[in-house]
Amino acid sequence: MNWENNVRRVVPYTAGEQPQDPSVIKLNTNECPYPPSPKVADALRDYDICNLRKYPDMNITLLLEALARLHGILPEQIFVGIGSDDVLSMAFMTFFNSGKPVLFPDVTYSFYDVWADLYKIPYECKPLDENFNIVKEDYLKENGGIVIANPNAPTAILAPVSDLEEIIQANPDSVVIIDEAYIDFADEKKDSCLPLIDKYDNLLVTRTFSKSRSMAGMRIGYACGSKKLIKYLNDVKFSFNSYTLSTPAILAGAASVEDNDYFEDICNKVRRTRKRVWQELRSLGFEETVSHTNFLFASHEKIPAGQIFEALKENKIYVRHWNKPRIDNFLRITVGTDEEMDTMIAFLKKYL
Amino acid sequence: MNWENNVRRVVPYTAGEQPQDPSVIKLNTNECPYPPSPKVADALRDYDICNLRKYPDMNITLLLEALARLHGILPEQIFVGIGSDDVLSMAFMTFFNSGKPVLFPDVTYSFYDVWADLYKIPYECKPLDENFNIVKEDYLKENGGIVIANPNAPTAILAPVSDLEEIIQANPDSVVIIDEAYIDFADEKKDSCLPLIDKYDNLLVTRTFSKSRSMAGMRIGYACGSKKLIKYLNDVKFSFNSYTLSTPAILAGAASVEDNDYFEDICNKVRRTRKRVWQELRSLGFEETVSHTNFLFASHEKIPAGQIFEALKENKIYVRHWNKPRIDNFLRITVGTDEEMDTMIAFLKKYL
Repeated sequence: MNWENNVRRVVPYTAGEQPQDPSVIKLNTNECPYPPSPKVADALRDYDICNLRKYPDMNITLLLEALARLHGILPEQIFVGIGSDDVLSMAFMTFFNSGKPVLFPDVTYSFYDVWADLYKIPYECKPLDENFNIVKEDYLKENGGIVIANPNAPTAILAPVSDLEEIIQANPDSVVIIDEAYIDFADEKKDSCLPLIDKYDNLLVTRTFSKSRSMAGMRIGYACGSKKLIKYLNDVKFSFNSYTLSTPAILAGAASVEDNDYFEDICNKVRRTRKRVWQELRSLGFEETVSHTNFLFASHEKIPAGQIFEALKENKIYVRHWNKPRIDNFLRITVGTDEEMDTMIAFLKKYL
Repeated sequence: MNWENNVRRVVPYTAGEQPQDPSVIKLNTNECPYPPSPKVADALRDYDICNLRKYPDMNITLLLEALARLHGILPEQIFVGIGSDDVLSMAFMTFFNSGKPVLFPDVTYSFYDVWADLYKIPYECKPLDENFNIVKEDYLKENGGIVIANPNAPTAILAPVSDLEEIIQANPDSVVIIDEAYIDFADEKKDSCLPLIDKYDNLLVTRTFSKSRSMAGMRIGYACGSKKLIKYLNDVKFSFNSYTLSTPAILAGAASVEDNDYFEDICNKVRRTRKRVWQELRSLGFEETVSHTNFLFASHEKIPAGQIFEALKENKIYVRHWNKPRIDNFLRITVGTDEEMDTMIAFLKKYL
C-alpha cells in the first residue's frame, strides 16, 4: 500500500497552445485582439499597492454593484469567480448531486465532461443535429441538470431563446446552465437568456470577462440567477476560499463594466471583421457556420482541416483544430485584428 | 420534487470581520501591517495593461522559477494557487480519497473540517494536550491523511520538526500536509519542514503570500513537495481551471520573491514588535502561548476574553475571539505596527 492509491486521478483538460514567440499570430484561444478599456488601466494605476497587504473585499461589492447596474438586476443575483471556468465548475459541484445524468451536447465546450469526471457526476452527451443545432427534445427527458453553451463553442452557432426557454421551463427539477461566454458577440441583445432569470429560479446564466472585455489575463467570470441559486453557490464558494478575486481584479473588473461605450465599440469591431472574413473565406472554398461569437468554425471543400492547420502553424498562424469525431474537418479561427486577418487570408490564398 | 433537493449543502466558513471604517485598528485577520516590497509596485507599474487581453501563462513559470531559486528546489516541486486556501482545498480533494478518516488537531485552522465536509471526507480531530501541543502518538495510527498547521493557528505554537518528521515517516500510506502559513515568523529557518520534501515523497508543505509577504489582496499561495505529489495536484487543478493566477498576480508574486532583503526586514520587524507586546501584555495580567507567528494568543487571569473582545471592539480595536470549547477564554491578536500596538496597550491599561 502507498499514498498514491488514494489520489484522485483525472484526465486534465488541454488548453490551446500559448506560444511565447511574439511574431506568432494567435487565433487559437479566442482572446480579444483589442486592449481592455483605458478605464481599467486608470483603476489599476490609481490603486495604492500598499493596500495589497489587506485581504480583498470578500463580498466583491464594487464589481457586483457595477454588474447589477449593467444588467438591471440585484447584486444578490450575481456570483463572481476566477474566470467562468471557476464559476461553471462550482455550479457543477453545487447543483448536480441528484445521481441522475447531466445532459449537454456532444460537440461543445470540452470542460463540461472534465468537471463531471472530477466530481463523479454521471452525464450523457446529446448529439447535435447534422447542422450542429441542438435537438430540443433531447433535453425534455428526466435528467440531473443541463448545460448548454449559447452561442455554442466551437461551432459558433446560436440557439433561439424560445427553444432554450422551453427546456428551462420543462425542467423545474434541474438547474439549467446557459453558458454565454460569447453572447456579447451575438447580433442582438435579445439573443441572451439573461432576462429569463427573473422568471425561472432554476436558470443560471454564465458570462466571462475573458473574451468581449479583453481581460483574459485578469481571470473574471460571473453567473446570474435567482437569489436562491446564487446563495447556494456562495455557500459552496465560502467553503473553498473566502477570498477568491484579488483586489486589483475587483477594481479592474468594475472599471471595465462602467465603460460600456468602449465595450460596445470593441464588440462591433469584432462583428465587422467577422463578417468580412466570413465572406473572404467563402470565396476561398470554405464553408462556415453562422457565427455569433468572436471566432469562425470553418471547413474547406477540398483540403482536410488538419492539413490547413499544420500549414498555418508552420507560417506562425495558430488556429485550433481537434482530432475528434464530427469536427475533425473544421478549424476554429479566432477573429483577430483586421491586419491579422489580412495576413491569414493572404497566406490561405497562396496556399490553397 | 425540485432542483433544490440536489444542492450540495455546506456550512460556510466565517472569516474575520472586514470593517470598512479606516479608523478601525484591524488586528483580526493576521494581515501584515507593512506594505509589500516596492519591487511589487514596480512590477505592476511596468506591466502593459493592453496585454491583459491575453490569458496568463498557465504554467506560472516566472513565479515558479523565483520560488524554486528561493527554496533551492525544482519548479516541478511547487504548486501555486489562489491563496493557500485554494492550494489546501485542492490537496484535500486530490489526496484524501481512501475513505479512512483524515486527522488534524481539535484546535487548529477552522477551514480543515469545512473542506472535509465539502468533499465528504471522513475526519477525526485529535485533541491537543493541555498546553495546546500536538500529541505525536495520535498521528501514528492508521488514517486517510494528516494535516498539521505549524506554527498552529490560533494557538501560535510551533511543534518541533523532529516530531513532525516522525509522523511523516510513520505514514508512507498517507499524504501529510504541513501548513506553514506562519512559518516565516518563526525564530529559525530550521523550524520549517520544507527541507524534508526531498526525503519523503508523501510530504506537502504549504505557504502563503498573505501574511509575511503583505500580499493578502493578491491571493497567492503555494505548496512544495515531491515531483509526484505536485504532478497529481496539477492534474486536478487543470481539470478545474487551466488559468488560475492572473498575470498581475504572477508578476507581483515573482517581484516579491526576488526582494528577499525587504522580506526578511518585515519579518524581523514583526518579531521585534511581538516580543515587546508579549512582555507588555504579561505585565497586564495576560498569559500567552509562545508565539512563532504574527499574532498572539492570550488569556487574561481575571477578565473573560469575550468581555475584553467587546470592549476593544467598542473602541475600534478589532481582534479575534471564538465561542468554541477550550479557546473561548483566549484572544487572537494580530501583531500590528508599533503605533497600533501602543494604542491597544494604552486602552488595555486603562480598561483592566
